Amino acid sequence: MQKRRVQIVGATGYGGLGMLELLLGHPQLEPVALIARDDAGRRIDEVYPHLTGRCALVVQPPDAATIGADCDVVVFATPDRVSVEYAAALADARVRFIDYSGDFRFRDPADYAQYARAHPSIAETAHPLAALLGRAVYGVPELFGEQVASAPIVGNPGCFAIGMILGLAPLFADRLVADGTVTVDGLTGSSGAGKKPSPSQHFSHLNDNVVPYRVFTHQHVVEAQQTLARLSGGHAELHFVPHLLGTTRGILSTMHAALARPMPRDALLERYREFYAGHPFVRVLDSPPTLKGTLGSNYCDISLVTSADQRRVVVISSIDNLLKGQSGNALQNLNLMLGLDPRLGLDRPPLYP
Amino acid sequence: MQKRRVQIVGATGYGGLGMLELLLGHPQLEPVALIARDDAGRRIDEVYPHLTGRCALVVQPPDAATIGADCDVVVFATPDRVSVEYAAALADARVRFIDYSGDFRFRDPADYAQYARAHPSIAETAHPLAALLGRAVYGVPELFGEQVASAPIVGNPGCFAIGMILGLAPLFADRLVADGTVTVDGLTGSSGAGKKPSPSQHFSHLNDNVVPYRVFTHQHVVEAQQTLARLSGGHAELHFVPHLLGTTRGILSTMHAALARPMPRDALLERYREFYAGHPFVRVLDSPPTLKGTLGSNYCDISLVTSADQRRVVVISSIDNLLKGQSGNALQNLNLMLGLDPRLGLDRPPLYP
Amino acid sequence: MQKRRVQIVGATGYGGLGMLELLLGHPQLEPVALIARDDAGRRIDEVYPHLTGRCALVVQPPDAATIGADCDVVVFATPDRVSVEYAAALADARVRFIDYSGDFRFRDPADYAQYARAHPSIAETAHPLAALLGRAVYGVPELFGEQVASAPIVGNPGCFAIGMILGLAPLFADRLVADGTVTVDGLTGSSGAGKKPSPSQHFSHLNDNVVPYRVFTHQHVVEAQQTLARLSGGHAELHFVPHLLGTTRGILSTMHAALARPMPRDALLERYREFYAGHPFVRVLDSPPTLKGTLGSNYCDISLVTSADQRRVVVISSIDNLLKGQSGNALQNLNLMLGLDPRLGLDRPPLYP
Amino acid sequence: MQKRRVQIVGATGYGGLGMLELLLGHPQLEPVALIARDDAGRRIDEVYPHLTGRCALVVQPPDAATIGADCDVVVFATPDRVSVEYAAALADARVRFIDYSGDFRFRDPADYAQYARAHPSIAETAHPLAALLGRAVYGVPELFGEQVASAPIVGNPGCFAIGMILGLAPLFADRLVADGTVTVDGLTGSSGAGKKPSPSQHFSHLNDNVVPYRVFTHQHVVEAQQTLARLSGGHAELHFVPHLLGTTRGILSTMHAALARPMPRDALLERYREFYAGHPFVRVLDSPPTLKGTLGSNYCDISLVTSADQRRVVVISSIDNLLKGQSGNALQNLNLMLGLDPRLGLDRPPLYP
Repeated sequence: MQKRRVQIVGATGYGGLGMLELLLGHPQLEPVALIARDDAGRRIDEVYPHLTGRCALVVQPPDAATIGADCDVVVFATPDRVSVEYAAALADARVRFIDYSGDFRFRDPADYAQYARAHPSIAETAHPLAALLGRAVYGVPELFGEQVASAPIVGNPGCFAIGMILGLAPLFADRLVADGTVTVDGLTGSSGAGKKPSPSQHFSHLNDNVVPYRVFTHQHVVEAQQTLARLSGGHAELHFVPHLLGTTRGILSTMHAALARPMPRDALLERYREFYAGHPFVRVLDSPPTLKGTLGSNYCDISLVTSADQRRVVVISSIDNLLKGQSGNALQNLNLMLGLDPRLGLDRPPLYP
Repeated sequence: MQKRRVQIVGATGYGGLGMLELLLGHPQLEPVALIARDDAGRRIDEVYPHLTGRCALVVQPPDAATIGADCDVVVFATPDRVSVEYAAALADARVRFIDYSGDFRFRDPADYAQYARAHPSIAETAHPLAALLGRAVYGVPELFGEQVASAPIVGNPGCFAIGMILGLAPLFADRLVADGTVTVDGLTGSSGAGKKPSPSQHFSHLNDNVVPYRVFTHQHVVEAQQTLARLSGGHAELHFVPHLLGTTRGILSTMHAALARPMPRDALLERYREFYAGHPFVRVLDSPPTLKGTLGSNYCDISLVTSADQRRVVVISSIDNLLKGQSGNALQNLNLMLGLDPRLGLDRPPLYP
Repeated sequence: MQKRRVQIVGATGYGGLGMLELLLGHPQLEPVALIARDDAGRRIDEVYPHLTGRCALVVQPPDAATIGADCDVVVFATPDRVSVEYAAALADARVRFIDYSGDFRFRDPADYAQYARAHPSIAETAHPLAALLGRAVYGVPELFGEQVASAPIVGNPGCFAIGMILGLAPLFADRLVADGTVTVDGLTGSSGAGKKPSPSQHFSHLNDNVVPYRVFTHQHVVEAQQTLARLSGGHAELHFVPHLLGTTRGILSTMHAALARPMPRDALLERYREFYAGHPFVRVLDSPPTLKGTLGSNYCDISLVTSADQRRVVVISSIDNLLKGQSGNALQNLNLMLGLDPRLGLDRPPLYP
Repeated sequence: MQKRRVQIVGATGYGGLGMLELLLGHPQLEPVALIARDDAGRRIDEVYPHLTGRCALVVQPPDAATIGADCDVVVFATPDRVSVEYAAALADARVRFIDYSGDFRFRDPADYAQYARAHPSIAETAHPLAALLGRAVYGVPELFGEQVASAPIVGNPGCFAIGMILGLAPLFADRLVADGTVTVDGLTGSSGAGKKPSPSQHFSHLNDNVVPYRVFTHQHVVEAQQTLARLSGGHAELHFVPHLLGTTRGILSTMHAALARPMPRDALLERYREFYAGHPFVRVLDSPPTLKGTLGSNYCDISLVTSADQRRVVVISSIDNLLKGQSGNALQNLNLMLGLDPRLGLDRPPLYP
């Protein structure tokens, strides 16, 4: 059987690297073009020596004529406002694509504007290609898998967003969150910030450190709130504080809510298990998940604890921010888009210890 | 001038070690006896080679005749239910002491019982020496410094408790916390668990990991709630989730509350600065504190952010769990007990980078 | 096609865990029995929650009737002197096995005795089953692959040994090492010491630390020297200092030698590439390998630098101590023993970043 | 008593920061001017928030009129080729100074040229101010303390150099190293590379990593060889491989040599203790030093092991690269230059755990 051909744009960042590595081990997909501004002209195994013997493709510079040509699907592992530059042409050519940025996570331009306002590096809040938003599906495969399967465009969720959404979806679907309000502390490894050196990512600064940042204002909250409100048909409000940790990978989200009605822990756990039945990458655990329990895998591990009076709940979720939080989830979407088993290329155990 | 003589019981644990190191650099105090069950008979610099050239005292086994003899004050750097064994005799002999455990953190036996019930290793919730509780002062020097100065017994706070109390005291004192309810995620380095090897402290398990534990049930919540309620004259309720981090030192507490009335951030920061004026070890910062910003020092760094509508606040505090969270705070209390400048022996900068 | 059946003895240690994880992803092998003294009776995904959804086998206690029954091959992921207890019965029953310990790494009882003397936990230096040593093959697949393929017993090398052997084999094969003498500093992650808590593996002690140990006396030197001497037909002498690092996985070995005759770097690199041609898990790099460049993979990365006068060489090798240094190499051997492609189940990229 | 006034040039790098922190705790010295190109005009506690409450000096831009004015001594915590720009004027004005770079580590311009050739960022190998070299003393206080005391200029050693020199000095002084040749693997934390972000210092890359670099060619070898040759009156040749570790602070050097004549370990240790008697910052230990055993202190810990035949020795030294490897050693020199007890301001214990 011939493998489907995948182009990666933004191939030399951590997001593109993650997709490349997954595709190299995929039985039915193959990476056929690596496109990136940085390191264009170099072999990818020169850029990333750990790929020696695994891939020798040469990075190509981005070019409208190349992007979308001679492939079955395009993956934009690029920052905000890159995929929109090529989206119209791809839509015309009926080339499907998935995008890691926020460009296609919203169907309503007003929602996008709210996101863009919260984003630290987007100046113009109006979406430059609003007409295409209606064709895009927000890529949480466990919630919107059917729509993803037929979507021309998939907006892959933000890393914090997917951890919160999967952790809270059953509660919101059942309207169990009092006032729709959840307090969340998120802990993230450094790799979410990408490969570009900066003072906040400088080893001597970050090692053994925890650095809270963007208190109340992280842009991932917007998509998470909208998705959860969609599930409950009501209000969703997340008070979110992200913390940068001195570790490379992983996001652990601790989510606190008052319950709309008292619920025993066992009943809630049972409800979660039922909700995620048939979704192999969400694991509902009896004990709190750990950051390392999902490292290197596409799992989202979830557990919860209720207070003694059964009026409050703490839900904790753990993902590898570069896999279920980014490339792994994107490949899961890609599998769905191409009619493949969603597990293909993703069946890796966490790296423990 | 002759130095005051300090005995350390539990001298070979991390708590005793921390006090010893501080005393070795103190201009007016000196450690005169190191007492411990573990490693009794060995020189302390054999137990801890990094003390080579700094201290050659031999560890003595605990013994009722020794504890309290020939010294000005005793430091119990011991687990729960050790100091109570010696407390009556010390009280009779009018020897003052400070205790790192929960044995003397509560004046009311009912409060102690609540703590003991929450404690994972206390079987019997009745305090064995309740008559002495009235002589003990809870050792938060910034709040109860005067009482500490004259106290025969000081109960040094739990490490999580002091980070939460200092972070929330101005809000509770001003009755600014709606419903007296705060949601707290606490992140702690490994050293709080002491030097005894265990699976949860095994390097291969904990490195690069975050492990939530004792959700809703950590015993430090009891003393923090009681202290904050005492400040506000009302109710205090902390929903607390501790997380063990793959780092050695530090506690960062992120505390979320609804405000009883809307408050601008600047006014709150100003109130905090005023509240802690004259308290050199609490620093109110303009930006969120970081874990490493207090490492190796006795500082408690605090900052806060309000939501756009000024109805919610996030307060973040950072301490070194072994210093302001334990030995440093204990020495600050000791200085007060002995009529010394509270800064003596504690004026060390954080170790950065 | 029916999968071959593999038994794992010592299944709950890190070595057994590693083999289990690899077998779960192997297209032609399956783990059929998990045998271990620790945690017998528990489901393996209770012992290791990160295996949830991947394996639910129950750990069985070791028992002579079980070990070797109803399987194609046995893997002893056990400490020294365990496999020898079962080896005679297995040999009689013509059940092939591979052993992670030193029990079957030596063909000559005198060689074994040298190893046993150096081993910190072997009291009796005589091999208890010397008659079987002749049936065993030392499992370096890149050097002795043919013998491994037909061996009834394979002794999987020590983790430090394989890093040194692969790094030095081309030099010794070409008799390029002056006096056969090499000075080696080895840096190892903590996981080589296994899952048992101990003071040296206590997180607070090991984090951010480097601890040299067993200077000149590590037992892995014995098998490395013997193997290299066998390659050169001459003398091999390794002056070796292992260092325990505050990291979980990986061994980086820096090997210094005087060259028997001056050699340019390029010629040596070329010779290495030729030597390892056809061996997919050894990668000869242009630049020094890094510890993380092999993390989570079965690769051994090697590079070298010569001095300006071409009279000295430094060879550096990097492996994941739990994969090429243990379970990965064992599976590579197992594939050979069973006539399979040696890459099966091992084609994973390093986890970077 | 009035404190002596110290100017710090390069005050906003890690080297300048280290000196500032030490001076803030020094009983007889005070920092009076912070001079730096980066961050000029900002308060130092804005640049480094962990200094809040400790220092509020404003960073001044470098300026020939300022440097050396109104102070007793100048510390150049600057890269190569900065202090030489000001040195002539300072010499004319009889202002003494100490320099962290290689500018004044060599008395002979030919030696300097050898260093400059090895240095990755020095283009011109001729010393631009050779006439002043004769006034400079190489600042190893344990070896050249008397000369330092009266020196107009002190060249503070390179971080790797001082660890190797102190570790090997007794052997070279006694001509015990066969052929004067030593093989050294050096392991360094990241902070030696300073505060400037770069790909090699990017957290996601360096965390859990070990990266060998500049094999055979590190410039610190030049000054170490010259110093050791000076001690022995013979040849000194170091084959040195530095390794960058995923940790913030510390240098551990493992040094291998053949002995010129067989020596028992105890005799060598005794000789080391005698050699360093009266030098409080060198500690000769019975067991191998650890990286963390000197963290945050000015100690250089040393131990050694001999081979069974007493013909080889491994010496291991540990320092905090930013203290004994940089600012701590510089302050020790400064104390000597100003006639003070060399321990002043440096009596801090290692931060353990």
